[in-house]
Amino acid sequence: MNRPTMVSTGTDLLADAVAGQGLDVTRVEWRPPADGTAGDLVTVALDPLRRAANARALEAMLGVTATLVDVAPASEVLGLGPGEFLHAGPPITWDRASGPLRGALMGGAVLEGLVADPDDAVALFESGTSVSLEPCHHRGTVGPMAGVVTPGMWMFVLEDPATGRRTHCSLNEGLGKVLRYGAYGPGVLDRLRWMGDVLGPLLRTAVRSVRDAGDPIDVTAILTQMLQMGDEAHNRNRAGTLMLLRDLAPAMVGAGDRPSADVADALRFVGGNDHFFLNLAMPACKLALDAARDIEGSTAVVAMARNGTDFGIQVSGTGDEWFTGPAQTAEGLFLGDYGPADANPDIGDSAITETAGIGGFAMAGAPAIVRLVGGTVPDALATTRRMREITLGANPRWTVPVLEFAGVPTGIDVTKVCRTGILPQINTGMAGRVAGVGQVGAGLVTPPAEIFPAALAALAARARSRSGAGAGPPRS
Amino acid sequence: MNRPTMVSTGTDLLADAVAGQGLDVTRVEWRPPADGTAGDLVTVALDPLRRAANARALEAMLGVTATLVDVAPASEVLGLGPGEFLHAGPPITWDRASGPLRGALMGGAVLEGLVADPDDAVALFESGTSVSLEPCHHRGTVGPMAGVVTPGMWMFVLEDPATGRRTHCSLNEGLGKVLRYGAYGPGVLDRLRWMGDVLGPLLRTAVRSVRDAGDPIDVTAILTQMLQMGDEAHNRNRAGTLMLLRDLAPAMVGAGDRPSADVADALRFVGGNDHFFLNLAMPACKLALDAARDIEGSTAVVAMARNGTDFGIQVSGTGDEWFTGPAQTAEGLFLGDYGPADANPDIGDSAITETAGIGGFAMAGAPAIVRLVGGTVPDALATTRRMREITLGANPRWTVPVLEFAGVPTGIDVTKVCRTGILPQINTGMAGRVAGVGQVGAGLVTPPAEIFPAALAALAARARSRSGAGAGPPRS
Repeated sequence: MNRPTMVSTGTDLLADAVAGQGLDVTRVEWRPPADGTAGDLVTVALDPLRRAANARALEAMLGVTATLVDVAPASEVLGLGPGEFLHAGPPITWDRASGPLRGALMGGAVLEGLVADPDDAVALFESGTSVSLEPCHHRGTVGPMAGVVTPGMWMFVLEDPATGRRTHCSLNEGLGKVLRYGAYGPGVLDRLRWMGDVLGPLLRTAVRSVRDAGDPIDVTAILTQMLQMGDEAHNRNRAGTLMLLRDLAPAMVGAGDRPSADVADALRFVGGNDHFFLNLAMPACKLALDAARDIEGSTAVVAMARNGTDFGIQVSGTGDEWFTGPAQTAEGLFLGDYGPADANPDIGDSAITETAGIGGFAMAGAPAIVRLVGGTVPDALATTRRMREITLGANPRWTVPVLEFAGVPTGIDVTKVCRTGILPQINTGMAGRVAGVGQVGAGLVTPPAEIFPAALAALAARARSRSGAGAGPPRS
Repeated sequence: MNRPTMVSTGTDLLADAVAGQGLDVTRVEWRPPADGTAGDLVTVALDPLRRAANARALEAMLGVTATLVDVAPASEVLGLGPGEFLHAGPPITWDRASGPLRGALMGGAVLEGLVADPDDAVALFESGTSVSLEPCHHRGTVGPMAGVVTPGMWMFVLEDPATGRRTHCSLNEGLGKVLRYGAYGPGVLDRLRWMGDVLGPLLRTAVRSVRDAGDPIDVTAILTQMLQMGDEAHNRNRAGTLMLLRDLAPAMVGAGDRPSADVADALRFVGGNDHFFLNLAMPACKLALDAARDIEGSTAVVAMARNGTDFGIQVSGTGDEWFTGPAQTAEGLFLGDYGPADANPDIGDSAITETAGIGGFAMAGAPAIVRLVGGTVPDALATTRRMREITLGANPRWTVPVLEFAGVPTGIDVTKVCRTGILPQINTGMAGRVAGVGQVGAGLVTPPAEIFPAALAALAARARSRSGAGAGPPRS
C-alpha cells in the first residue's frame, strides 16, 4: 500500500490542508532567510575558513572545565577602583539606562559609601565625573540581571585548570527585592553588607580549604549532574545549589575561624536560595565560551547579554564587536499583582547560559520550569529539539536523560540563525521597569532578530576582505 | 480516504502481521486473567463493599503526611530487647534465610556484643534459644535489603501529625560493602559503631532542634520535590538526600554539643551517600500505606516486601496475612566483575516505595535511573504509564513533570493485577548471594505472579463469607 507523503517546510496553511485529507505530513521548522541576508549567507558559506574555524570553536568551548578556586572582593580580583561600576550587557551610559540598572547603580553607590541616600546617586551618575560604567564582559565577569559589581562586592573566581584562564561573578542575593533586580532599600543593602562581612569571608575560607586539599569544587561536573536533576541552570539552579552546599558545608564547619552561629546563618542563606548556584553556572559558561573567542572565520556566538535597554551579541570571528538591538520584553508568569506593564525589557548577562547550551536550550531536561516561566511541557521538549537547528553540535558531557541522553545543543551559529529564522530561546527573570521595585516575574524571551544579520554582514565583510576585494560573491 | 484500523490486545503475532500490511494498529497491553482467577474476579468485582473500600483506602494513603520527629536507638523507640533482631520481608527462619540476610544477622550479632567473631553467630541463630527473628513490618518499621535492625541501631522516627501514628527505619550506611547487603567485615562494623556513637546522636540533636522550633523536616514535601528533580526515591535519592542535608545542616552546626570535626564528618558522610534519604522515603511510604490497612473489602496492596527467599504482599481487606511466593532475581547492571550468577533473589522492604506509587512506578520522572538499573528511557516512561493499569488512582501531590505533571499511579489493586496480568515494576539493588559479599548490582524485578491470585482468593473467600455461604457466584 503506497501512500503519498509530504514534507512541509514552514507553510502551515498547506500542511494543514493536506493533513486534513488524511495524508502523512512531516513538518520541518523553516522560515525564509531574513531579508537582505542572501548574499552574506553565500559569502560566509563559501568562506574557506568557516568549517574548520567553527569546529575549532566548538571543540574549544567543550574542552573547558571550570573549577571554583577563590572567593574575594572585586577590588582585589578585578582591580576595580573607587567609583568604578560594572554592569550587565553591552556598553551603556546612564542617560540610556533602564530603571532596574539605575536602581542597582544607586544601591551600589550607597554600598560603596559614595552617597548616603540612594537618590543622591542620580546626580553622581548624571555628571559622570567621579564614576564610570563598564560591561562585566569587558572585565572577565558576568552579572545576572542588572549585573552591577562594585569594588567591595565579593566575587566567585573560576579557573580553567588547563589554561589558568579565569572568570568571575558576584554572590547571588536571592529573589524578590534584591539589588540585581533594581531594588535598593535598606533591607537590600543590609543583606549585601552581611554578604560582604560574613558570607564572602566564610566562603573564601571553605573554597580555599577544599582547593588546597586538591579537591576544588568542579562547577562543570555539578552542571553535568544538575541537568540530570531537573535544573536547566538559568532559572532552575536548585540541585546545583544543593550540591554546592554539600561540597562546601564540611569545610565551612571545619574552618573554625567564625562563630558557629555565622556558619549556621551562611548554610541557611545558601540553602534557602535555590538560585545561589546561578552565579557559578554563568561564569562557568563564560569560561567555556571565552575559549572560543577570536577564531577568524568562526560564526559561533560567544556572548549574548542585555543591559535592560540593548540586547547584544559577540561572535567568535568578529572579535570584541557588539551587535546590538532593542531588548525585548519576556512573556511569562508574574509575581503577585504584577503584570506585563510592570516588566522591564530583558536584562542581564545570564543569557551566557543559553550561549553555552543550557538554560532555555536545555529546557527538555527541566520540564518543571514551565511552572515558573510559562509554556507547556511539550513546548519545553520541543525547544531543546528546535535549538539543534541553530547550533554547531551537541555537548557530550551535558546531556538530557529524557531525550535519551542527547547532548544539549551548543554553539549558536549566526549563519544557521539567519538561514532558518529560528531565534535562540532564553529563560529569564523579569525586573520591574521602575528603579527600586525588584523582581516582577519570569518568562521566555528571544534576542531582537536583526542583530544576527548585522553580525552576518560583519562576518561576510571580513571574509571578503580576507579573499581580496571583489573575490567573493557580490553582497545582495 | 477511509483506511481500516485495528486495535490489538496483547496478541503481538496478529498485530505484527497486520502492521506489516501497512495498516494502523493500536496496541493495548492486555493479557488474559491468570488461570483459575475468573470466579474469584467475579466474586470480588460484585463485592458491594469493594468500590467504597478502595476509595477509602486510596484517600487514606494520600491523606498522610510524614514528618521526621526523632532519631533514637531501636531499643528505645521499638522496645527491642537483647537478642531480638528485625529483618526485611515476610516472616522467615534462619534455616531458610538467604546469604545476605544471614550475613547481616551475623554482623548484627557482633555489633550487639553477642559474639566476638561473626562466624560464631551461626550457631547462635541455628539454636535460636537466645535470639529471635521478626519482620520489620510487624514492629512499625521498614528495612532496606536485609533490613536487619538490632536494639543498638539508631532509627529515624516518622510521624503523621494528624493521627500521631509512627513508623521507623534505620540510618542508611551507603553502598557497596554494607550490612544491609550482607557484608559484615570490620569496616562495616566500624562504620555502624560510628553511626551509633556520632551520627545518630548528632542527627537526634538536629532533628529535635528543628522539630521544637516548629519546623520539622517534612519528608512528604521533600518527596514531592525529589520527583521534580530526577529521583524516584527508591534507587535514586540524590536530591532528597541533598534537601535533607540542607534542612538539617544549620541545626547540626548550631547544636554545639559536638566537636566541629564530628559535625564536618557527619555532613561529609550524609552528603557522600546519595541513598541516605531512602531510609526516610521508605518509612514515609509505610506511614501512608498503614493508613489504608484493615479496610474490609479493599483490594489495595498495603505492603510488598522480600526477605531474600520469599516475596510477600499484604492487602488492606485481608488484615495481616502475608501472601508469599519465591523471590525473583532482578535483571539489571552489575558492579565490577559481578554477574547474574552472583546475585541473590530480591530482598528488602524497599518495595514499600512502589507500593506507595514511587520507585519503579515513578521511573518516568527519573529517566537517568536506567544508567543504574538497566533498560531504556522509553521503557522508563512506559513503565509509569503501564502502572496506571493496575492502580486505584493518581497521587495529586507526587507528580511527574515530563508526563505533564500527571500524578504517580498509586494503590496497587489486586483485582487489576489479576485481570490484566501486569505485575508491579520494582527498581531494586542486588545483594550478593553469598553472606559477606555486599552489593553486586541494581536492576528491575517483579513479584512472583502467583501471590496476586492467592490474595484474590482470600478476598473472594471473605466476600463470600460476608454475603452468606453460597450467595456469591461459584468459585471456578
